[in-house]
Amino acid sequence: MIAAMTNAERPAPEHDPTNEMDAWRHTGRQAVDWIADYLEGIEARRVQSDRSPGEVRAMLPNFAPETPDSIESVWRDMDEIIVPGLMNWQSPTFFGYFPANNSPPSILGEFLSAGLGVQGMLWSTSPACTELESLVLDWLVELMGLPATFRTDQVGGGVIQDSASSATLCAMIAARDRASQGQARTEGTRQPLVVYASSDAHSSVDKAAMICGIGSQNVRHMAVNSLRQMDLSVLQSQLESDLAAGRIPTMVVATIGTTATGAIDDVRAIADLCQQHDIWLHVDAAMMGAAAICPEFRWVHEGVDRCDSYCFNPHKWLLVNFDCDCFYVRDRKWLTRSLSINPEYLRNEATDSGQVIDYRDWQIPLGRRFRALKLWFVLRLYGAKHLREMVTDHCAMAEQLAEWIRCNPSLVLDGRQLNLLTFRHVDGDDASAALLQRMNDAGRVFLTHAKVADRFILRACVGQRTTSGRHLETLRSELQSAIESAG
Amino acid sequence: MIAAMTNAERPAPEHDPTNEMDAWRHTGRQAVDWIADYLEGIEARRVQSDRSPGEVRAMLPNFAPETPDSIESVWRDMDEIIVPGLMNWQSPTFFGYFPANNSPPSILGEFLSAGLGVQGMLWSTSPACTELESLVLDWLVELMGLPATFRTDQVGGGVIQDSASSATLCAMIAARDRASQGQARTEGTRQPLVVYASSDAHSSVDKAAMICGIGSQNVRHMAVNSLRQMDLSVLQSQLESDLAAGRIPTMVVATIGTTATGAIDDVRAIADLCQQHDIWLHVDAAMMGAAAICPEFRWVHEGVDRCDSYCFNPHKWLLVNFDCDCFYVRDRKWLTRSLSINPEYLRNEATDSGQVIDYRDWQIPLGRRFRALKLWFVLRLYGAKHLREMVTDHCAMAEQLAEWIRCNPSLVLDGRQLNLLTFRHVDGDDASAALLQRMNDAGRVFLTHAKVADRFILRACVGQRTTSGRHLETLRSELQSAIESAG
Repeated sequence: MIAAMTNAERPAPEHDPTNEMDAWRHTGRQAVDWIADYLEGIEARRVQSDRSPGEVRAMLPNFAPETPDSIESVWRDMDEIIVPGLMNWQSPTFFGYFPANNSPPSILGEFLSAGLGVQGMLWSTSPACTELESLVLDWLVELMGLPATFRTDQVGGGVIQDSASSATLCAMIAARDRASQGQARTEGTRQPLVVYASSDAHSSVDKAAMICGIGSQNVRHMAVNSLRQMDLSVLQSQLESDLAAGRIPTMVVATIGTTATGAIDDVRAIADLCQQHDIWLHVDAAMMGAAAICPEFRWVHEGVDRCDSYCFNPHKWLLVNFDCDCFYVRDRKWLTRSLSINPEYLRNEATDSGQVIDYRDWQIPLGRRFRALKLWFVLRLYGAKHLREMVTDHCAMAEQLAEWIRCNPSLVLDGRQLNLLTFRHVDGDDASAALLQRMNDAGRVFLTHAKVADRFILRACVGQRTTSGRHLETLRSELQSAIESAG
Repeated sequence: MIAAMTNAERPAPEHDPTNEMDAWRHTGRQAVDWIADYLEGIEARRVQSDRSPGEVRAMLPNFAPETPDSIESVWRDMDEIIVPGLMNWQSPTFFGYFPANNSPPSILGEFLSAGLGVQGMLWSTSPACTELESLVLDWLVELMGLPATFRTDQVGGGVIQDSASSATLCAMIAARDRASQGQARTEGTRQPLVVYASSDAHSSVDKAAMICGIGSQNVRHMAVNSLRQMDLSVLQSQLESDLAAGRIPTMVVATIGTTATGAIDDVRAIADLCQQHDIWLHVDAAMMGAAAICPEFRWVHEGVDRCDSYCFNPHKWLLVNFDCDCFYVRDRKWLTRSLSINPEYLRNEATDSGQVIDYRDWQIPLGRRFRALKLWFVLRLYGAKHLREMVTDHCAMAEQLAEWIRCNPSLVLDGRQLNLLTFRHVDGDDASAALLQRMNDAGRVFLTHAKVADRFILRACVGQRTTSGRHLETLRSELQSAIESAG
C-alpha cells in the first residue's frame, strides 16, 4: 500500500488545459457562422469544382505540424483550399446524381452526436442510442405508410445503415444464409446461389454479390419493359431455367426509383414469384421511397408489404445529411442469425436477457455513431407537414422543368418520375454529351447523365432544400445558352 | 417557348424561409454551449446509464409531430431523456472497452463535414475530400513510422473506413480474390479458402469470414503462447495440414493489441510464413497502433513493413471521434480489383483518365462523408507533440494503476500492455465478476471484462482525453470500496 500512496501523490498529468472548453465555445461559434455563411453564400460559388487532379494536395504541407496551428490558419485553408476543391452538393442549382439534401436541424443532430461521442454497438453501451433509433424508424413506418411488420416492436424492425449499398449487402447475406440453411455462414458460399435484379438496378447489387461470395456472374440482370420495369416473363423463365439447372434462386432486388430514370418495378407481381419459389425479396427505394411521405405518392410503395427487406435514404431526399439509410426487415431473425457474433468481451446482462436490440447484429461493422439524433432533429424541428410540402414542391418544380423541355425544339424529354427528369439533345448522343459538359464546366448548374437503351441521356433531379423557381430559371437559361453556343 | 415563359413566371416554391439560417446561427450557438456544458459537467454524471430496457422509449411520443416542435422542447428532451440514457463514453472515469476518445477539434471537424454535406464517393464528386484524405493518411505514415509503401503516392495507399471490422472485411475480400485468382469475385466463393488468427483475435475476423462467403468454420483460431501471441509452431503445422488436405490458406490476421489483454503477435515471424506460402497478411492494430506515434513505442509495429494490409483507429486513442479507422494496403490494385465497379451513371473524365483515386473502390458502401476533416483538425489543432504526450501520459497512468494493483492484497495483476491493464480478484471468477458489477452499478467508474485462459478478468483501459491523476484516485477508491463491501 505504500507504493500506492506514493503514486496517488504524483502530480496528475493534465491533458485538458482548464480553458480548452472555454476556448472551444469561441471556436464553436466561429464554426456555426462559418457553416451559415457557407450555406447562405453557396449560390455565388461554382457547383462543380474546377480543380485538376493533385491541385488541392499541392497547396497543403507534406507533413503534419509538430505544434498546434492556429484556428485562423485552419479557417483560411478551409476558405482558400478546401471549399474551392468541393462539389457544392447543397447548392440550389445542384441537379446531379441524387439530392443528398441537408438541413440546419440535421447538421445540429450530427454535431450533437459528435459532441456526445457515444458508441451504440450494444443496447448496454448507450440505451438511448438504440431506443431512439428504433423509435424514429417506427415513426417513419407510420409516416410513410410502410407495413406494420417493419416496426421494431414487431418481429421485424428497422435500423440505420450508412448507405443503401450496405442495406442491400445485409439483405443479401440474410437471403444467402436463409437459402443455404445457414451453410453459407458456416461453411462458405459453396452452393450455386443466384440473385436477380433488373438491368437498371443499382450497381450495389453486383457489388454485394461480389462481397458476399455469391459472385458477380450469379447476378442475373433481367431485361426491362417499355417502362424500364423488370420484365416479369423474363424473370419467370430465368427462374425456371436456373431451377432446372440445379441452381438456387436466392434473392430478387426490386427497385423503386432506378438511378437512371426513376423506374419503379412491379413489386407486387415480383412478390408473387418470390413467394412461389421461396426467394428473398429486397426492395431498394433509395431515393424515391421518400416520396411516400405524401399520401398522393404512396403508390410508389405498392407491394412493399410483401417484401422481406426494404430500404430508403433520408440522406437523399428527406433533409438528413449523409449517412442515413433506413433499412427494414419483415423478420429480424434472418438478419441477426447472419450477422450476430457474441464474444465474451461484449457480453452483458441486457444482451443475455434477450430483452434488447443490439444493433451491431444488424450491420457489417461493430461500432456505430448516434445517427438517430439527426433524423429525430429533422422530424421534430420541421414536422411531417413541412417534409410533405417539400416533396410535393420538388415534384411540381420537376414538372415545370419537364414542360419547358417538352416545348424546347432542341431537346427531347424522355420522361419524368416524381423529382427526376431525363432528356437529351435532339441531335443525338454527342450533342447530349457536349451539352452536359458545357453546362457543368460553366459551373452555374450541375447535372449528371446515364445510358438508357444505349442512348446518352441527361438527368436533372430536383431536390435541394433551397431550390426554388429562380434556380429553375437558372437551369433553363444555362441549358438554352449551352444549346445556342453549340450552333 | 410560351409555356416556358409562363412557368418561369410562376411564384417560386420557397423551402427556405429567409430567416432559416439566421435562426440557426442562434440555435447553433446553443448547441455549442450544450456540448461544452455536457463535456465540462460529465464527471458529475453516472458513467453507465441505469435505465432499464424500454424506459427511454416509453418517455417519448409514439408518433412524429405534424408541425414543428420547439427547439426548447428538444433541448429539454436531450437533458432529461437522452443523456440519462447514455453511457458517458467521454467521462474521465470511463475505463471500459477502448477509449473512443474524442476532442473539441474533432467535434468541429465532424460539424463542418455535416455542414458542407458533400459526397466523396468519387474524386470528381469533391476533389478536396479525396485529396485531403490521402494527404492526412500519408501524414500518419510519417508520424507513426509506417512503411513508405503505404503512402497514397506509392502503389499502396490509405483510406478512412468506419471501423476496423470493415477494414478487416475489405482486406479479407482482397485476399480471397487474390488467392482464388479472381474466381471468388465472379463465380462466388467455391474453393476451400482458409483464414488464420490467434484465439484472442477480434470477433470481426469471424464476422468478415461469415460475410464474404469464406465461412466461420474456415477461420482457424491458433492457440497462443504464454504471452498470448499466436503460437507459430501451431500456425505452421496448421498451414501444412490444410495444404496437404487441398485447402487454400488465404489470409493470416495478426493482432497488435488484442481486445482482452493487448497481446501483440510476432508479425515478423508470421510474415515469414505468409511469404513462404503466398498468404495475405493483415495486421489489426485497432487501438494500440496509435502508440507508434511515440518513438519509444514504435516497437509495436515491428514487422508491419512486411504485411499486405494494416489498420488502426484514431477513433480509439488519437482524439478523433468515431468513425475513423485508417486502413492501409501495400498494393492498392488488389483492393480496387475486388471492390471496383463502374456503372455508366458514375463515369466521369477524371476516373477514365486513371489519374485519381476514387475511394468508393476502397470500401463496402458507395457514398462517403468528408471524414478526413476531423482527422486534419485534430492533427493541426493539437500538433503531433501533444498527441505523443497524451499517449505517453496514458501509459504512465496505466503503470501507476498497475503498481497500486500489484500492492493490493485482494487483487492479482495479470499484466499491463501500454494503456491496458488486466487484473482479477484473488478469490476467483465469482469474486471478480461481483467486483466489476458493484463498481459499474455504482456508476462512478466503468470497466469491462474478458475471459483469458477460462478466467474472468477485469480490464481497465486508460485513454480518455481528460483522465488525470484524480480520476485514477477515483478508480482506486471505487475498487477499494467494492472489495471491502464484499466482505
